[in-house]
Amino acid sequence: MRVLGIDPGLTRCGFGMVEGAVGRPLRLVEVDVVRTSTDASVASRLCVIEAELERWLDRLVPDAVAVERVFSQHNVRTVMGTAQASGVAMVAAARRGVPVALHTPSEVKAAVSGNGRADKAQVAFMVSRLLRLSEPPRPADASDALALAICHIWRGSASARVEAAIAANGSAR
Amino acid sequence: MRVLGIDPGLTRCGFGMVEGAVGRPLRLVEVDVVRTSTDASVASRLCVIEAELERWLDRLVPDAVAVERVFSQHNVRTVMGTAQASGVAMVAAARRGVPVALHTPSEVKAAVSGNGRADKAQVAFMVSRLLRLSEPPRPADASDALALAICHIWRGSASARVEAAIAANGSAR
Repeated sequence: MRVLGIDPGLTRCGFGMVEGAVGRPLRLVEVDVVRTSTDASVASRLCVIEAELERWLDRLVPDAVAVERVFSQHNVRTVMGTAQASGVAMVAAARRGVPVALHTPSEVKAAVSGNGRADKAQVAFMVSRLLRLSEPPRPADASDALALAICHIWRGSASARVEAAIAANGSAR
Repeated sequence: MRVLGIDPGLTRCGFGMVEGAVGRPLRLVEVDVVRTSTDASVASRLCVIEAELERWLDRLVPDAVAVERVFSQHNVRTVMGTAQASGVAMVAAARRGVPVALHTPSEVKAAVSGNGRADKAQVAFMVSRLLRLSEPPRPADASDALALAICHIWRGSASARVEAAIAANGSAR
């Protein structure tokens, strides 16, 4: 499956697509960070992010989109822009029928490093290992987007297996 | 000018269109509250809000959209959904070239009631007075959306006059 991970943000929004399945090697398809100017209005910055995402969805046709679940306890000044960008990203995917999943930062860290409290450098290192890259993707938003995609491939597959097992044992429940 | 006010929210999103200009009577064009089910995913709820907003923009062709500026110091559980809905609303307007303005709750309250700390009932009362309605629009999201539109008509016109005056005195600056 091909998963597009999105690390939402107004100033820098990370897009990373990974192809893979549980028990098979993962492959980096493409990664990029969309930047918007702090001089522009919030509405026009969100438009830039949406337009770029539309191009990714048209061109790379992901099977699912994984977006970081945003919490409001962090930096008050940036969190609203992050939430707005995540909303725009979710709608762009959902209105064309692409399944959208949300994963928390600690779920993503735990998925790629085994530690829900891993730091940025550790996540970037593991992403480069798992995707067999010569060096960690930069900036951090790029490796966070890839980590989200990897997390979804592994967690999504796990929950799909559970659902399949439940369906197979349907009458036994 | 015709202004569409949007009180963003995931569970209830208020849309209210008002026509008017400074020094002229205001007229209610239309008001409604879009509701989405808490059982649905955030992505699909945002899609419902976007689709409804698209219909409003197609049908009523506002000259501007006024959205409530969201702050994160309020209810932590609902603020993220509010921010996501506001992002979706801003992009829907901006990508078709409709100017988007943000007004804070206290700017809106001050515009319609003269008091930046007015309560919900006072805002609803003043909205019904200013639009010559027989009773305050319900629920509060409806009257808040109309208050945003009124605020924008009055504040927008004021800033447009200032800009026109500056332009007229261009060489004198």
